Amino acid sequence: MTSTAPEPASDSAVPQQAALTGGASFWATKRVGATAAFTLHDGPHGLRKQTGETDHLGIGESVPATCFPPAVALAQTWSVASAGEVGAALGRECRAEGVGVLLGPGVNIKRDPRGGRNFEYLSEDPHLTGALGAAWVNGLQAQGVGASVKHFAANNAENDRMRASSDIDPRTLREIYLRGFARIVRDARPWTVMCSYNSLNGVRVSENHWLLTGVLREEWGFDGVVVSDWGAVRDRPAAVAAGVDLAMPGPDPHGDERIVAAVSRGEVPAGAVERAAARVSALSAKIAAAGPATAGFDRDAHHALAARIAARAIVLLRNENGLLPLDPARPVAVIGEFARTPRYQGGGSSHVNPTRLDIPLDEIRRVAGAEVPFAAGFTTDGSGDAADLRREAVDLARTAQVAVLFLGVDAGQESEGFDRDHLELPAEQLTLLCEIATVQPNVVVVLSHGGVLRLTPVTEFAPAILDAALLGQAGGTAIAEVLYGVVNPSGKLAETVPARLEDVPSYLEFPGEFSHTRYAEGLFVGYRWYDARGIEVAFPFGHGLSYTSFGYADLRLDTGAGGITATVAVTNTGARAGREIVQFYAGLPASARTRAVRELKGFAEVTLEPGQTADVSVLIRREDLAYWDIRVDDWVVEPGDYEIAAAASSTDLRLRQTVTVAGDTVGLTVDAETTLGELLADPAAAAAVVPLLQQMMPAGGEGTALGMDMARMVMSIPLGMLASFAGGDATDLVDRIRTAVETG
Amino acid sequence: MTSTAPEPASDSAVPQQAALTGGASFWATKRVGATAAFTLHDGPHGLRKQTGETDHLGIGESVPATCFPPAVALAQTWSVASAGEVGAALGRECRAEGVGVLLGPGVNIKRDPRGGRNFEYLSEDPHLTGALGAAWVNGLQAQGVGASVKHFAANNAENDRMRASSDIDPRTLREIYLRGFARIVRDARPWTVMCSYNSLNGVRVSENHWLLTGVLREEWGFDGVVVSDWGAVRDRPAAVAAGVDLAMPGPDPHGDERIVAAVSRGEVPAGAVERAAARVSALSAKIAAAGPATAGFDRDAHHALAARIAARAIVLLRNENGLLPLDPARPVAVIGEFARTPRYQGGGSSHVNPTRLDIPLDEIRRVAGAEVPFAAGFTTDGSGDAADLRREAVDLARTAQVAVLFLGVDAGQESEGFDRDHLELPAEQLTLLCEIATVQPNVVVVLSHGGVLRLTPVTEFAPAILDAALLGQAGGTAIAEVLYGVVNPSGKLAETVPARLEDVPSYLEFPGEFSHTRYAEGLFVGYRWYDARGIEVAFPFGHGLSYTSFGYADLRLDTGAGGITATVAVTNTGARAGREIVQFYAGLPASARTRAVRELKGFAEVTLEPGQTADVSVLIRREDLAYWDIRVDDWVVEPGDYEIAAAASSTDLRLRQTVTVAGDTVGLTVDAETTLGELLADPAAAAAVVPLLQQMMPAGGEGTALGMDMARMVMSIPLGMLASFAGGDATDLVDRIRTAVETG
Repeated sequence: MTSTAPEPASDSAVPQQAALTGGASFWATKRVGATAAFTLHDGPHGLRKQTGETDHLGIGESVPATCFPPAVALAQTWSVASAGEVGAALGRECRAEGVGVLLGPGVNIKRDPRGGRNFEYLSEDPHLTGALGAAWVNGLQAQGVGASVKHFAANNAENDRMRASSDIDPRTLREIYLRGFARIVRDARPWTVMCSYNSLNGVRVSENHWLLTGVLREEWGFDGVVVSDWGAVRDRPAAVAAGVDLAMPGPDPHGDERIVAAVSRGEVPAGAVERAAARVSALSAKIAAAGPATAGFDRDAHHALAARIAARAIVLLRNENGLLPLDPARPVAVIGEFARTPRYQGGGSSHVNPTRLDIPLDEIRRVAGAEVPFAAGFTTDGSGDAADLRREAVDLARTAQVAVLFLGVDAGQESEGFDRDHLELPAEQLTLLCEIATVQPNVVVVLSHGGVLRLTPVTEFAPAILDAALLGQAGGTAIAEVLYGVVNPSGKLAETVPARLEDVPSYLEFPGEFSHTRYAEGLFVGYRWYDARGIEVAFPFGHGLSYTSFGYADLRLDTGAGGITATVAVTNTGARAGREIVQFYAGLPASARTRAVRELKGFAEVTLEPGQTADVSVLIRREDLAYWDIRVDDWVVEPGDYEIAAAASSTDLRLRQTVTVAGDTVGLTVDAETTLGELLADPAAAAAVVPLLQQMMPAGGEGTALGMDMARMVMSIPLGMLASFAGGDATDLVDRIRTAVETG
Repeated sequence: MTSTAPEPASDSAVPQQAALTGGASFWATKRVGATAAFTLHDGPHGLRKQTGETDHLGIGESVPATCFPPAVALAQTWSVASAGEVGAALGRECRAEGVGVLLGPGVNIKRDPRGGRNFEYLSEDPHLTGALGAAWVNGLQAQGVGASVKHFAANNAENDRMRASSDIDPRTLREIYLRGFARIVRDARPWTVMCSYNSLNGVRVSENHWLLTGVLREEWGFDGVVVSDWGAVRDRPAAVAAGVDLAMPGPDPHGDERIVAAVSRGEVPAGAVERAAARVSALSAKIAAAGPATAGFDRDAHHALAARIAARAIVLLRNENGLLPLDPARPVAVIGEFARTPRYQGGGSSHVNPTRLDIPLDEIRRVAGAEVPFAAGFTTDGSGDAADLRREAVDLARTAQVAVLFLGVDAGQESEGFDRDHLELPAEQLTLLCEIATVQPNVVVVLSHGGVLRLTPVTEFAPAILDAALLGQAGGTAIAEVLYGVVNPSGKLAETVPARLEDVPSYLEFPGEFSHTRYAEGLFVGYRWYDARGIEVAFPFGHGLSYTSFGYADLRLDTGAGGITATVAVTNTGARAGREIVQFYAGLPASARTRAVRELKGFAEVTLEPGQTADVSVLIRREDLAYWDIRVDDWVVEPGDYEIAAAASSTDLRLRQTVTVAGDTVGLTVDAETTLGELLADPAAAAAVVPLLQQMMPAGGEGTALGMDMARMVMSIPLGMLASFAGGDATDLVDRIRTAVETG
């Protein structure tokens, strides 16, 4: 076959268009013709806008901005409204700084708890991720600031992140790693999507036309700008051809020239450059339409919002004997350096220079109305005499009625740029906990960390545990108010806490080697794995206690064209007002497919006074019941009896109901590879096949000479092989049976 | 680039050559010119030569032949000598029947305990598989009969076996699924290898040139005939081009013609057909050289051999309080239909018409010298009144001092052609066991089964368990002699017995769907998985008790060019003569690779009188320490301190020693994708890179503004990206550093 080269472009607009597809500087685009320049800045939980001169790596100091709870904590709110409020507040801060695009939200799936950037991501579950991510984008963009949904796609480890190929089978890619992105694109129409550094199934994402154009634009209808992660483009012509509209950072004049040359040689279609430039121009116009920078934002109001969200994010993991909330009248000792020097955000591009910082110890003293004593217990950098520090803390704990112990992971141990290799708290902190528990039974542990920790050694000694994750600049207030019951905790885990690292689905395949990561666990990420394999976990996905209790009753399912509306009546059965996150899981017990036992398909929050009852309702969209069928390369709803559970966590299923769903039909394809089993399951085909079989089987041909059930064995024989055994022609046989199926 | 069509063949030899590449009938090749026809017959543990007219599916009655222990049991002998003896005996039987090629051994890895054909395969471990398979082939071929090593390759499930693609990453394919085949090809030079039905990574094996020619012939030096599994060829020209020399069964005259046409059209190189025909002719000549059929074989001697091998294959899983061996003076009750109607082989193409059959109950009576009472307890086909049968058995058990209970899986439940979907013994058998245990504490369970069973419910009630797998026609004698201590049991498990199906490595990905099977567990098949994830098993790989005990002492390691010679002194520390299987495992605790904790790399059997000591020695070949490195597509020995364990099972490590192995060197490739981390680990490259980094990092550029360790983050940055951040040219930078590395 002779290939005809496309007509070389001679359009003089190409150089200008090419210029629009590359940045002007580290954080800004170019002004080209009528298209105004605009700026893009980090990051998802607070604006990081560099001050002064921009260095080559973009790592200088930044202007003060509110440090909201990072994604790890935001997700623990399970609150679409909260995500929207944070997005809006971030939008106001960007407007005050004249920022056009804020580089967030980070919505990669937390495939492995060791992922170094997990604190910047929402969840192990794509439904929770998609719902919160869409709300955040809607909140931000309503202020006239563009979002950049990142990192698209399958960028689930930091190790070798600029090169490694995420090797993922099609179903897993669609159902787990792309599903959240798809929902955000469809529900929130983000102005930009950021393409990631990594490769996907061997193809560098910034050159992956299938992903950036086929899936993102043609399937999902994305009409915004694809911006590269900073430095993710290595070949500008290939990137623009694949669907990258804006390569960052700049300047990169050689890259602009290379695109022009590639177009003139016919290697890159001129239309691709034209479309990319038009999209950058359109984005510039949207940003300009928001008007000039505003005068500023209300720092106090944003700090208060950060505190409110942080309080919603705290998960009460454990509370034996109602140890919490604390009674202000009861003498408390606060222990742990993190009470004085809080760990409240992660390291890397999302690192925010906060407008202020609440210190947990100060806030505890404020809320308790007392001069609560404190001992550091340990240092976070290994300095000091560990034994002395511990002794002092144990002595203090002995004198109190309750010890509140702040444990956690130091910032140096988890960050963008590298993964962890274990899930352990530092040994000296565990030793401290153990020693304190010998003198003080009433131990409340407050955990500060970005990634999941192994908590078995904590649950052994601490009757009460608050998971404070990374709470942002107002976390100190949130922790104090939850400890004393000013706020009733209501967060739920967005990630399973496994009993052991060895139990983690990707344990043996993380982060991979030789620049390849096999997503070996497939669909079974997070709770899907522990449920399917019956592995005990320390705390399940969706878990979180309250100072009150909730009853579930009267689960109702209504099927409509859009899906299943599930409604349940929730009652506050305790003595305090509280917020409950009601979770809805769907499963198909008789499924013929590889499938999780159950998957989160809806959730809602409800706040109830003591004794109050309210109906909580979600729509489980029909498309969310679909699996990706590689036979037809499309979403297919399997028919059957789906079990819908209303649940307080992924393992605390309160009510279950079954609903029959009419599935999609995938027709039988008859060719030489169609098996007898498939044909015999189809009445018309069976009628054509049975006589043939009878002719081939020997008299009394049940195969007793082989000591087996011959009929069962032949089910897997394809038509083509059957024809060859019979000495006949496969084409004739296939044609005959295909006709029978089509006319039958 | 213009492609030039190969010169069309005009060689008039092509039709004759093509004819040689296809069978004449179900079990025979064609006589063509000077090449004599020969026959090929099933199967690995006994000859299945059909009598009378051959039907289309080859499922008629067969001539009587010795049914030796199927592979599941042969592997449990862990005896290279035994495998050789069985191979030789099979060769004699083939010679007596004039059979040219015997279709075995079956050496696929038992990836999942549900695999329907696992009874025909040896082990979950490639080393054990390769060593036993090679011995079997050598034994057979020394008689002038060709082996057919099957099913090549990665045919590890019965479900959809004619179509499904085994999707396997390169390391796993090489290190687990091809390693045993490679060893057999190199150590035993089999006359034929049988290509399997399935596809491998999307390419049908019978058309897979990479596998059948690139790997098998060019890498491993195979010089025999590749014969297709029966019906595995769907496209004769494609198959012969890929390296299939003989497509079976025949006749298939259209196929021969298609090859001729394809050659004349230049679609298939004439050389490929010529080579295939020459290999078939050479095989025919080898078979002819063995001479005409012999007069027969010694049925008694072969039966006796079958009994000896069977006795070595029985694994004493458990023996609390020395319940076994039985004292003939102690009244015993035998219970279970399998004692009277033994299950001794599997269903399918390997099914043998035995020359005779030992009944366990009869043999027990013979060895005990008493009229041991019997109750069926259950039927294997569900007929009869289960409660009545159980009551009768319980009553009998109550009257005895020991109950020997035969439990197992009926032939209808496991066979070639389909996989199991669970690992359970029939519920009525477990109920029987439970009820018997309430009246009789001394329960000995004898298990008959082809695939692994979940044994937790058995260990709960039975203080002694004999795993009799499928023992062939003389199994009844072997069981009786082991029960009474005439033979001291010495078999060891060739497959892990997991605690639960959910713990199985491939649990969630077996048998796959939509004709694809993801080998998700990768390298971690069998014990490699349980060890790496710290999962408790019911009985570990390599486990097996004895009526005596063995002490291990003085492990010595000697490193030479060929590998590591490991020697250990083993002493029979008990009161009976016995055989011990000494296992040697190797691990590399500080490995930088994804790697099993330890892997079997050698084993040997030793038979010792009470008090006797002997040195047991194995050579751990250097190539067996290598992993498959996808950077260089070759085997690489990683340097480091290997831990060698002398062990009585995969978890019963008796002695350990460390030995330093000088590894192979894989040079650093410098290109735009080389990361700073890789360069900084190389002194010459580091000298060139450091100044560049210093220039890029801002003053005081430790990245404190990002709250992280900047130096750690930049390690993963590739040169090309660094160049673009610096506004420089990647090509120049790469060239500069490459020169530094090459000259440094």
